[in-house]
Amino acid sequence: MTRTGAIDPNARGPAAVMFTSGELAARLQAELRGPSTIRIRGLESLDAAGPEQLSFVRDPKFWTMWSASRCGAALVSRRAAESAPPPGDRAQLIVPDADSALIQILSMMSPPPTFEPGIHESAVIDSTATVSKSAHIGPGVVIGPRSFVGERAAVLANSVLGADVSIGRHSVIYPNVVIQDRCILGEHVTLHPGVVVGADGFGYYPDPRTRMPMKIPHIGSVVIEDHVEIGSNSTIDRGKFGATRIGAGTKIDNLVQIAHNCVIGKCCIICGMSGLSGSVTLGDGVTLAGRVGIADNHVIGAGATVGAGSGVMDDIPPGETWLGHPARPGRTALRIIASIQQLPDLAAEVRKLVRSQAGSSQNPIKPPAA
Amino acid sequence: MTRTGAIDPNARGPAAVMFTSGELAARLQAELRGPSTIRIRGLESLDAAGPEQLSFVRDPKFWTMWSASRCGAALVSRRAAESAPPPGDRAQLIVPDADSALIQILSMMSPPPTFEPGIHESAVIDSTATVSKSAHIGPGVVIGPRSFVGERAAVLANSVLGADVSIGRHSVIYPNVVIQDRCILGEHVTLHPGVVVGADGFGYYPDPRTRMPMKIPHIGSVVIEDHVEIGSNSTIDRGKFGATRIGAGTKIDNLVQIAHNCVIGKCCIICGMSGLSGSVTLGDGVTLAGRVGIADNHVIGAGATVGAGSGVMDDIPPGETWLGHPARPGRTALRIIASIQQLPDLAAEVRKLVRSQAGSSQNPIKPPAA
Amino acid sequence: MTRTGAIDPNARGPAAVMFTSGELAARLQAELRGPSTIRIRGLESLDAAGPEQLSFVRDPKFWTMWSASRCGAALVSRRAAESAPPPGDRAQLIVPDADSALIQILSMMSPPPTFEPGIHESAVIDSTATVSKSAHIGPGVVIGPRSFVGERAAVLANSVLGADVSIGRHSVIYPNVVIQDRCILGEHVTLHPGVVVGADGFGYYPDPRTRMPMKIPHIGSVVIEDHVEIGSNSTIDRGKFGATRIGAGTKIDNLVQIAHNCVIGKCCIICGMSGLSGSVTLGDGVTLAGRVGIADNHVIGAGATVGAGSGVMDDIPPGETWLGHPARPGRTALRIIASIQQLPDLAAEVRKLVRSQAGSSQNPIKPPAA
Repeated sequence: MTRTGAIDPNARGPAAVMFTSGELAARLQAELRGPSTIRIRGLESLDAAGPEQLSFVRDPKFWTMWSASRCGAALVSRRAAESAPPPGDRAQLIVPDADSALIQILSMMSPPPTFEPGIHESAVIDSTATVSKSAHIGPGVVIGPRSFVGERAAVLANSVLGADVSIGRHSVIYPNVVIQDRCILGEHVTLHPGVVVGADGFGYYPDPRTRMPMKIPHIGSVVIEDHVEIGSNSTIDRGKFGATRIGAGTKIDNLVQIAHNCVIGKCCIICGMSGLSGSVTLGDGVTLAGRVGIADNHVIGAGATVGAGSGVMDDIPPGETWLGHPARPGRTALRIIASIQQLPDLAAEVRKLVRSQAGSSQNPIKPPAA
Repeated sequence: MTRTGAIDPNARGPAAVMFTSGELAARLQAELRGPSTIRIRGLESLDAAGPEQLSFVRDPKFWTMWSASRCGAALVSRRAAESAPPPGDRAQLIVPDADSALIQILSMMSPPPTFEPGIHESAVIDSTATVSKSAHIGPGVVIGPRSFVGERAAVLANSVLGADVSIGRHSVIYPNVVIQDRCILGEHVTLHPGVVVGADGFGYYPDPRTRMPMKIPHIGSVVIEDHVEIGSNSTIDRGKFGATRIGAGTKIDNLVQIAHNCVIGKCCIICGMSGLSGSVTLGDGVTLAGRVGIADNHVIGAGATVGAGSGVMDDIPPGETWLGHPARPGRTALRIIASIQQLPDLAAEVRKLVRSQAGSSQNPIKPPAA
Repeated sequence: MTRTGAIDPNARGPAAVMFTSGELAARLQAELRGPSTIRIRGLESLDAAGPEQLSFVRDPKFWTMWSASRCGAALVSRRAAESAPPPGDRAQLIVPDADSALIQILSMMSPPPTFEPGIHESAVIDSTATVSKSAHIGPGVVIGPRSFVGERAAVLANSVLGADVSIGRHSVIYPNVVIQDRCILGEHVTLHPGVVVGADGFGYYPDPRTRMPMKIPHIGSVVIEDHVEIGSNSTIDRGKFGATRIGAGTKIDNLVQIAHNCVIGKCCIICGMSGLSGSVTLGDGVTLAGRVGIADNHVIGAGATVGAGSGVMDDIPPGETWLGHPARPGRTALRIIASIQQLPDLAAEVRKLVRSQAGSSQNPIKPPAA
């Protein structure tokens, strides 16, 4: 790519926070081998790291890459420490688990975003709305009648809140989000750009005279509890009556559809492009891998897991892992999938059996065309 | 969830409309059992309803729940009425069908939204555009040259209309919608938030010299006929030439993709996350369940239905139900799906046959690894 | 659809560009049969074309449709030219390949959009941002600190750029796009409406005390190289550290999800509704048909193709075609798919074998229920 301007993305922003190897070791309570004065400005894998970047050695097998790497320092998992080469002029930070330490470092390098209190002059806020003094309202934001934005919450550029919407303390609404009338968000909620909360559910009934689909009004709302995060361009429809509800601590990825009257438990993980039809219930701690579909009215028990790409047409008991389309309990599904892979061989074997059996040749199985 | 502000979502908005049990019975032409003076402010299922909420008994088996419920009144389907317990101090409204009556009530409690005529001062409207005096244009809306917004139509906050766009009477464009140049919407059309109409279709050809994909210009448009409704964040691409067309009365759910030059008939139902490739044709009254994909150039006949999660690689004759991936006629598909569930048993049976047959053991089918 | 206003979509916009049949023949270096004076204002298929529209005859079998068509002229592929009827008062333009010529004509009729230099008065641009004098900034656009917009680039209505964003020369950002902090776009990049670039990746780890999913900070960025095009409402997440990268010339359709730290090669084609999990690598020239899912960390080799609706759970070697769920090499997958279609017959055959074999009837395979 041709360079297009004066901006160097490596020279500013969160990555510009600087720590020495000694400071990092102290903060992580790590054993430091090598110098304590190495300046660290970012993280990178061993093959791509430079002298001011921290990398990681999770496993003894990565020491060869460490030797070839230009990294200034590395997080080293305890189990890799014994076989460590001498650090030389670079630093090794020995920790129980490099992955956990990595997350600590990411948090140190990227303090949660803060937003200046105040309302941008271009925002359009209904005179009956309440915005806390410590909240941030960005340019072009629209806030409808009787809506409420809590302390230290942020509603970023061009997002639109309807009437009677409530945004709890410390919540962050990224740009171009739409939250329709009467939807309620708890505290520490994050909505990424383009999320739509509270559009009408998809419900119609055929007009007896005209055969045209007539709209079923949706007078319910959406309730999103504390610490929920919802990914870009996902859509959460309002209830027909009563609320569509997302339980506290649940995390939803991009391009996910949650239909009207779904009730999602606490601390669920819903990966990208999954879709829940109307009135689906998820217990607490359910995990849906990517691109899962669930037919309407089904109940997924607490702690259950559904594999990627599955289509769920049944209730799933708590704690079970299901997969496939239609989804089946994991052991059954894996046996079926394994059998399918061997199906051409099985068919050949059956043809052989048929041929070898006298008098059974009137209606043989044809070999597949492909 | 910690309470985050002064807003009580149950105390205002559409749900605040109040009827007495007597008024409801009169409007529904229902037989009223019990008091006519019970105040009803909303709807709820039997297990969750309170004294000012209406619930419903579709089937005699729900009378146990009625007895335990705190609901103030219930809609009762005729077939459940015979076995009804005495209403006591609560009301029973006997109707032919509780579901149909429910839709009537939802409509009574939620009159269609109305929007004040006028143009918000922050809207940016080209001097050559025409906006009807009775239309509503929200804050931050942008309307391009020669575009037209009809009588009593509404274009809500931060939506963007390109050049030569036309929006018919009574249509509602929710916030953050984008409608590109030359797209035409009929009357009573509803676009939910984040819908994109009229982006270029996805068409490229390999440049003979550079091997890079070169863009095929898309100079067509999109025509959306009367009474169409399109769900949040769905995308309707413009035609290469000629128009992508959505027929009158068709309803499209969230996160649906309609590619360039699709022609969709009247009164189709397209459920969430379905995707139509280029130049797909749907006859009138086609139903696509959730997450259906259709390969380019195929024709789905009038009144056909495609099951959830199906991948259509063929034309489908009118009136048929297909499902699966690749989709097959329903009966065939169900036989295949049932056979797949039994495949591990079938494979075991074949292994047994092979073992029991002398001289056939050179190349036995291995049991699956899982 | 009832006519809703004064706008005639056929009378203005790109389609209003006019050429005579003689001019078109000269520009295409086509052999002209028939008059050179026919006015052409647009393109249409033979069945729908009118006297001022150009159509095309790719194959001799279409001459019957030509005779019935009202088109004023047609592009004719060389191999159809021999059997051409006399042109009469209409024009035939004989070219080596009608499809290639069609693309040339579309380009002539639709010059790439140009945007007036200047910044709309309603745009909100940080005082530390740099906007080239020849760039176009539309109404309601928001541009954050230190961001950069290159020469002749356009950022259209209500799009939002965070801090330290860079947009290269000639790039077009359509309305309602969001580009978060530190993301870098090359030259001639096109982002269609509703695209989100640079939201946090989807990564959590369970808090050891509370069991709640704790957010893994994403301090990386997104780099989009020259000549990339991304379809409406698609989402490209930022890297955990390091960048999510889209290679030069790659084209991405609508509603596609690219997760954190994916690295996509040059000139890939990613069709609608496909989704890449975290840290997926695509070599140069990879094609993903519609609705493909790829599990995290997998590598798809250069020039590989994945069939529509596939779920990829393995690395794919360069140049291969895979399909199915789980995806398998094309030949294997097609054999499996063909076998599945014949499975009910196979099961019947096995039941017959079992019945005919004495002593083997204790545990017969039941016929499927459907």
